[in-house]
Amino acid sequence: MAYPQETFVRSSLSPGSLIAQKRQVASSTTLRYQLEVLKKTGRYDAFKLQWHPSYSDPPNVWPIPNHLFWDSDVAKWIEGACYFLHRQPDAEISAAVDELVQMIRSAQQPDGYINIHYTVVEPGKRFTNLRDFHELYNAGHLIEAALAHHDLVKNKELLEPLLKYVDLLYRTFGPREDQLPGYPGHPEIELALLRLFHRTRDSRHLELARFFLTERGRTTDGKHFYEVEAKRRGEGSHTRMAYWGEANALWYYQADKPLVEQQTIKGHSVRAMYLLTAASDLVRLGEAPGQLSEAIYRLWNNMVHCKMYTTGGIGAMKQWEGFGLDYFLPQGTDEGGCYAETCAAIGVMMLAQRILQYDLDRRFGDVMELCLYNAVLTSMSHDGTKFTYVNQLASSDTDLSKREEWFTCACCPPNVLRLLGQIGGYIYTEQEGKRSSQVNVHLYIPSTFQFQAGDEPAILTQKTNWPWSGKVEFELQTKSSQISLALRIPAWATSWKVVPSPPTSAPEKGYLVLPAAWVSENPSFTLEVDFRPRLVAPHPYTNQDTLALTRGPIVYCIEDFDNPWVEDHFKSVQLDPECVVQDEAVTDEATGETYVALVVKEGASLLQVQNIDAHPTLGAEELHSVEKSDDKVIKELKFVPYYFRANRGGRGHARVGLRRWHR
Amino acid sequence: MAYPQETFVRSSLSPGSLIAQKRQVASSTTLRYQLEVLKKTGRYDAFKLQWHPSYSDPPNVWPIPNHLFWDSDVAKWIEGACYFLHRQPDAEISAAVDELVQMIRSAQQPDGYINIHYTVVEPGKRFTNLRDFHELYNAGHLIEAALAHHDLVKNKELLEPLLKYVDLLYRTFGPREDQLPGYPGHPEIELALLRLFHRTRDSRHLELARFFLTERGRTTDGKHFYEVEAKRRGEGSHTRMAYWGEANALWYYQADKPLVEQQTIKGHSVRAMYLLTAASDLVRLGEAPGQLSEAIYRLWNNMVHCKMYTTGGIGAMKQWEGFGLDYFLPQGTDEGGCYAETCAAIGVMMLAQRILQYDLDRRFGDVMELCLYNAVLTSMSHDGTKFTYVNQLASSDTDLSKREEWFTCACCPPNVLRLLGQIGGYIYTEQEGKRSSQVNVHLYIPSTFQFQAGDEPAILTQKTNWPWSGKVEFELQTKSSQISLALRIPAWATSWKVVPSPPTSAPEKGYLVLPAAWVSENPSFTLEVDFRPRLVAPHPYTNQDTLALTRGPIVYCIEDFDNPWVEDHFKSVQLDPECVVQDEAVTDEATGETYVALVVKEGASLLQVQNIDAHPTLGAEELHSVEKSDDKVIKELKFVPYYFRANRGGRGHARVGLRRWHR
Repeated sequence: MAYPQETFVRSSLSPGSLIAQKRQVASSTTLRYQLEVLKKTGRYDAFKLQWHPSYSDPPNVWPIPNHLFWDSDVAKWIEGACYFLHRQPDAEISAAVDELVQMIRSAQQPDGYINIHYTVVEPGKRFTNLRDFHELYNAGHLIEAALAHHDLVKNKELLEPLLKYVDLLYRTFGPREDQLPGYPGHPEIELALLRLFHRTRDSRHLELARFFLTERGRTTDGKHFYEVEAKRRGEGSHTRMAYWGEANALWYYQADKPLVEQQTIKGHSVRAMYLLTAASDLVRLGEAPGQLSEAIYRLWNNMVHCKMYTTGGIGAMKQWEGFGLDYFLPQGTDEGGCYAETCAAIGVMMLAQRILQYDLDRRFGDVMELCLYNAVLTSMSHDGTKFTYVNQLASSDTDLSKREEWFTCACCPPNVLRLLGQIGGYIYTEQEGKRSSQVNVHLYIPSTFQFQAGDEPAILTQKTNWPWSGKVEFELQTKSSQISLALRIPAWATSWKVVPSPPTSAPEKGYLVLPAAWVSENPSFTLEVDFRPRLVAPHPYTNQDTLALTRGPIVYCIEDFDNPWVEDHFKSVQLDPECVVQDEAVTDEATGETYVALVVKEGASLLQVQNIDAHPTLGAEELHSVEKSDDKVIKELKFVPYYFRANRGGRGHARVGLRRWHR
Repeated sequence: MAYPQETFVRSSLSPGSLIAQKRQVASSTTLRYQLEVLKKTGRYDAFKLQWHPSYSDPPNVWPIPNHLFWDSDVAKWIEGACYFLHRQPDAEISAAVDELVQMIRSAQQPDGYINIHYTVVEPGKRFTNLRDFHELYNAGHLIEAALAHHDLVKNKELLEPLLKYVDLLYRTFGPREDQLPGYPGHPEIELALLRLFHRTRDSRHLELARFFLTERGRTTDGKHFYEVEAKRRGEGSHTRMAYWGEANALWYYQADKPLVEQQTIKGHSVRAMYLLTAASDLVRLGEAPGQLSEAIYRLWNNMVHCKMYTTGGIGAMKQWEGFGLDYFLPQGTDEGGCYAETCAAIGVMMLAQRILQYDLDRRFGDVMELCLYNAVLTSMSHDGTKFTYVNQLASSDTDLSKREEWFTCACCPPNVLRLLGQIGGYIYTEQEGKRSSQVNVHLYIPSTFQFQAGDEPAILTQKTNWPWSGKVEFELQTKSSQISLALRIPAWATSWKVVPSPPTSAPEKGYLVLPAAWVSENPSFTLEVDFRPRLVAPHPYTNQDTLALTRGPIVYCIEDFDNPWVEDHFKSVQLDPECVVQDEAVTDEATGETYVALVVKEGASLLQVQNIDAHPTLGAEELHSVEKSDDKVIKELKFVPYYFRANRGGRGHARVGLRRWHR
């Protein structure tokens, strides 16, 4: 059992790679930038439990007070800070962490309770709205912060109060008559409690997590807990939350039925990912109820096959920040929606990483990498001070491609921070035997990984220019001859080889297993993966007849900065499926970033929309002749990595999937 | 100034045509069938003002009581019955009309008020929820019924109480301090009042209609009337109607801003059509405020160019029974939505017919015909006893292609009834000079039209097998030489001619004007329009790369009855744009209906979806090779008119637009 939040300390990123650079920016800039924002907005001091003027603000999304997540914003920053401090001591950041820890300690109520809103704004109402008021979600993030802090400072200054809070929760929630049979509207505490159990081995922590997970969606006398709770609050039976797609939309919370009975993935996408992550931890622990593992696979498959964008983004629906119908994947707001929240993509990575530990299958590893380089990295500006929450695949006039300094609901920026802090933990996992070890390499990122095979220490080093080149040089330093390695061979790799030649070139579920004997004889070897650009297309049932460019794990987009003639967010660009795509190594002057751009010369045209007589019974022949026309061939189209969009100014026009040109 | 509800008496449909048959079925069966349903469900007796057990039922769509529209259901049936009784006396129907008229008279309160719900269920609360409770909508339909009844029986048994009710409304609503500055959530009374004014020339009727139309969407001290009214009712500021896409969605009612300021057509589609119909009547009367005419054109264009289905159906969004984003036109529920309510298509016909009277432009006439033969006719079964409310272009497992016996909200069935009753009024309009007349022929339906040119009577006869054949023979019988004719040349007509040759073959805005001198010399002439089948396609911005078949004004669909191998609602059928389409004259044994079916032989294939590896970064080449493959060429595809769907049993699989096959 291992968590990237803990194992990352054994991976050391070599400087220079894209991921190392992003981590470095986060460490040197984002951490400090976000600390300033926490201070400026009142979050930093909120655990002092003083009234903040903004507490009276009308909610942006009724009925959720804008400050409701402040506990978690602070907790996620502490968690991220602790990860970075492991490698890079920083007195100012350390001092802030210390001060926040003391504030949280002082905010704890005599019975153990910790929560800003219910202590300052609505005292006496705690645990009356588990459905919407994020109390347990906040608790979960505080637990995760406490675990990170405990790892870093090796004392229990933060863990201790959280353990006391969990004691209170353990007494409060459960099946007994004197307990509340409730569970959080936004999962998070489940996965935090399972991590806590991993640390404490206190069976109550496992028990409470399992209770929350299995109670969720059940009914008693035909009623869901949330219905009983709402009635108890006196909520009108026709009161409808802004984020409910229909009356009493319990599927928004993945709470309309027990997880094991859910057939398709629905509702708020971040909640779904956090819930499934906890569920997969339960499977890993061997503590899952029957059918849970099958449910996780079923929902994963539904998500990846029918509800995931080319970038790894999930969630088409803005209203509930979540999943729409199968294959409903419009690229932008003006085409029907596209949400692809940053936190949701991080959640996909969390879930994939957990499943990989009991099912080494590249379908999880591939998606984890897809999300990292695209849906997740796109959320932070090159300088680490601007962020996205929503990551559309196509801009429109009302939703330009751009980043923001902060958000009222600020879940995403510190989530990226803490992910980058622990990213080393996503590269490798280990299957330990008594004297042997198998190291599974999921991501190709220049780094060293320290581990043990029995008593023998070992260091695995990879050198690579991935994601720009597919060549990865491995070197294993150890005295052990009991170490096998498994390398993920991405499904998109049209060709690949390992040199020297290994005993088998047939991957098992997409991982090439290099046996200990071979590794022992070949401690230095090379993996080479073909990185030629690929055209990808969404499933025909999406009704999106589009083409997008990818190269290695990178998904590309097109921006007005490089293609300044655009007036319509590239809606009318038609890309020839036979086009020739050229690489172009770029060092961007303004940002200093290096990347491979892609260039298509005379392989695209502008659909002359003005020549189409819009009409419900438009003649196909007339339309197709307009489509076919090469009146407006585009001399040169330039594509940049999707993660790099909105970094160089411009007018905010961008698009991933371009109309397929039927010449 | 003329209304089809009045002019239809001058058009006499020759038996045998598709429309005449439908009208005959409505007259002989539907009228009686619906009368029985009215009786069975309690609607018939509701004006007796006794309590009905269903009044306690929980609303299907909160907060709307299920019986709220009963007034209008009865009114629309009376209106329809009166139209049919003009041509076909029927003692039983007449007796029912008489009895209902007496019940309505007896339901009138001393001050003139007439409404079932607010008299029986919530007395004392009248005019407290104009936004949602359909009080004025019901009043409008009662006025329309009264006008039809007055025309038929030449007495004021029903008109008199309605005039008294309108007096009350005139006193109640208006700009004075002692009046309510309100307007109906569901427009209808506006167009009814304008018709009433046309009958009475009582300026108060015009004034009240104009007040409702111009007050709508205005604010006083920054507040809309509906907000003030809701507050007065004590409605919670976060109460959200089920049919609101967002909080306080006044656009649902087309009441977020004054009509003249509205830029795109939004909200509930039936309401929008009824509102615009009344607005265009105001324009016709020369009583419209500045910019109203421009607003009508703007909203019409937005609707027809960006929000109308191939069938003439409007409204993609189920939640608010209305318009979605521009070009958001999925074909079915499982693809993102498709509503295309029957009443909305009838509303489009009403609006088009009104505009045609001041702007003779085939873009209105073409759409009117498109709606009639497709989106409207499809709503009634061949035998006149089953109906649709929603008219999707593609079925899915949860929304099969089928008809129902009735609906709780039963607006559509009696709306079709009254439309068919007056359909003759849609064929012709007349522009009268002092001694001359121009007859505009909008629809080609075998019929005679009686009119006057000055003092000279005239009869125009058309003989045709339209919509199955494009040949139309005209004959004008008159002594006048002052009669010109204008024939609509549909935009879809790839070729056409008039024989003998007229002085010009250049239509003006799509109407070929035959001058009086020519008509006088050629009282018999023929129009021939090419009826070869056409492939039509939606605008590229819909992201629907599909092809549909049309022939003349008829839009076709494909059903499992003729193509029994289907398992997926024809989602994976790919139609070759080069396919050869053959006509096949059919007389259906079971229903006795005759029509032209279309057959495509070896011009389509089944996309082998199971060979596609669903995945967010699916390779375009792999996908396109699956698309191209002609592994599964379909030997024969048979298409039937969309209006004819769901008449012969089957499993409810149907589709209009098929995927374009890229071979």
